[in-house]
Amino acid sequence: MRFILTAGVTETARIDGISAAGAAPELMAATPSADAELLAYGQPVRTGLIPVSPSGCPTPAVVTRAVRDRLGFDVTVLDAGLAEPTAAPTVDLDAAPGADIREAVAVPSAETIFEHARDVGRALSDDEIVVGETVPGGTTTALGVLTALGEPASVSSSLPENPLDRKRAVVEDALAASDIAPGDAAGSPLQAIRCVGDPVQAAVVGLARGALESGTKVVFAGGTQMVAAGALLRHADVDTPLSVATTSFVANDGTADVQAACERLDLELTVTDPGFDAADHVSMQRYAAGEAKEGVGMGGALALADREGVSMTAVRERIVDVYDALTEGVRAP
Amino acid sequence: MRFILTAGVTETARIDGISAAGAAPELMAATPSADAELLAYGQPVRTGLIPVSPSGCPTPAVVTRAVRDRLGFDVTVLDAGLAEPTAAPTVDLDAAPGADIREAVAVPSAETIFEHARDVGRALSDDEIVVGETVPGGTTTALGVLTALGEPASVSSSLPENPLDRKRAVVEDALAASDIAPGDAAGSPLQAIRCVGDPVQAAVVGLARGALESGTKVVFAGGTQMVAAGALLRHADVDTPLSVATTSFVANDGTADVQAACERLDLELTVTDPGFDAADHVSMQRYAAGEAKEGVGMGGALALADREGVSMTAVRERIVDVYDALTEGVRAP
Repeated sequence: MRFILTAGVTETARIDGISAAGAAPELMAATPSADAELLAYGQPVRTGLIPVSPSGCPTPAVVTRAVRDRLGFDVTVLDAGLAEPTAAPTVDLDAAPGADIREAVAVPSAETIFEHARDVGRALSDDEIVVGETVPGGTTTALGVLTALGEPASVSSSLPENPLDRKRAVVEDALAASDIAPGDAAGSPLQAIRCVGDPVQAAVVGLARGALESGTKVVFAGGTQMVAAGALLRHADVDTPLSVATTSFVANDGTADVQAACERLDLELTVTDPGFDAADHVSMQRYAAGEAKEGVGMGGALALADREGVSMTAVRERIVDVYDALTEGVRAP
Repeated sequence: MRFILTAGVTETARIDGISAAGAAPELMAATPSADAELLAYGQPVRTGLIPVSPSGCPTPAVVTRAVRDRLGFDVTVLDAGLAEPTAAPTVDLDAAPGADIREAVAVPSAETIFEHARDVGRALSDDEIVVGETVPGGTTTALGVLTALGEPASVSSSLPENPLDRKRAVVEDALAASDIAPGDAAGSPLQAIRCVGDPVQAAVVGLARGALESGTKVVFAGGTQMVAAGALLRHADVDTPLSVATTSFVANDGTADVQAACERLDLELTVTDPGFDAADHVSMQRYAAGEAKEGVGMGGALALADREGVSMTAVRERIVDVYDALTEGVRAP
């Protein structure tokens, strides 16, 4: 098993009020670079940053790293349009940060990114890959591609109150800017990404495609963004079994019916509840209050812990250790 | 244990007659990128290249990959000035390819590369790292820094007939271009690299420095280039135990007395003989004839195999498998 983090940024995240992936908008561009370092090293290195939401909710990278500490799985990071340098080892996909989806073209090099990621997927010798993402604003671009494909799915949010109307308005503008109507990109996943998606989607879909071609099982670790990845693959006529592993925070989000979307797209769904409401610790309290919910493959990591017989109590203990080591070593912004 | 490959290029390799790390000069610039892919994936991915010498000797990456297949160790690649894209995950050190050492400044950003690599070394949680290199022309830049430091060492060669007079003449010109005399950079390792070295040296020395600072044991996997890395650290007043693991091909090279150099610099030396003269296979024949000798941490990988109880017979069998899979799958240039 190999855990693959697909990391990038998009100008779409700068639109007011759609993402909580950073203490302030100007820090959001560094969040994926810092997430990659937390996962690779357990600490920030070049970024010097511990990503937190405006209310102080730490990045889900803390959770995924905690599970990695328990299980010791291999990690590979794909650079799907990072904006800031990271000390984590990354695979170069020739990806630039995505544009605001309200531009005519959101991801000019969607096809190049897809092909490079597909080559990497084909070259992997692992039995299984678990694919996570870190891209602020990613649920809005997920809504963009789902709408372009004509899929009726909704999306979740890193904010406790999902600004779904705001996202729908942004996607409406985005489709108009690309001169397409909902459903016009059905069967054309790369067109959907190019018009109203983000570079991380191109990397995730290419990687999964290549991995499946060489007999590697693919688990999408995440919430509605990974449902969108599944939809993109289904629209590429991939009918191989695919699964999505997410958190109970996403599954319980009434604004995004993940279960129904997975059923419609024939994606096997695994939901794991890390029991954060039982934990009286700052690293987990904001999740219990509905923030963040997912990201950095958190749901997939929790599912792996469960499968390997590591209790959620043990995972929560390790989360406290990772968080404490982080906040002692580096001053959070 | 983690194996770290430090990969980069230098214009110095283009000087006629000093390197065999590529079938032709124009392919040499892609050799480190391809070596990184072979080590990470067991096959070329973006480069589409299997590095071979002009006479057909395959890159030592085949040997290191074969040992990795047997032992399953973790690999991290540092981008210490790659010139061509690679699909291998790499750590970005802000390194550009090195200039010809006969320019006034060979590595303008030696200090930046050193500091970034040092941060990575400090962040590693491994007990031990084994550090290899892939940089065509690297023995000439090794001779450059050794001379600048005032160390009397000689260097080995990837060619059967070591063009040592040619290298000495190049280094003489290089020192003159930097306006320094032999020994002028004693105690100033970064000055030596900046004037007459290569970016891989800055990365290796920074990485080792950082790793030692955080209690990680360092083994230099290579021949005279790694003796030069040891010398650079000794000139940075590092008196921690350090070791060099190399092949019998380097140890038996009369033109470079590695044993004497290691003794003088207080570097523990391990020599491993892979028994290639017993193998009647194209992947190993040219080594037995005195070509290549080292590179991509081959000597360190062989020492690891030996330590873990994997016989050289088993290593040789796996080398044949890796080579055959490579040459079936991809047409060598």
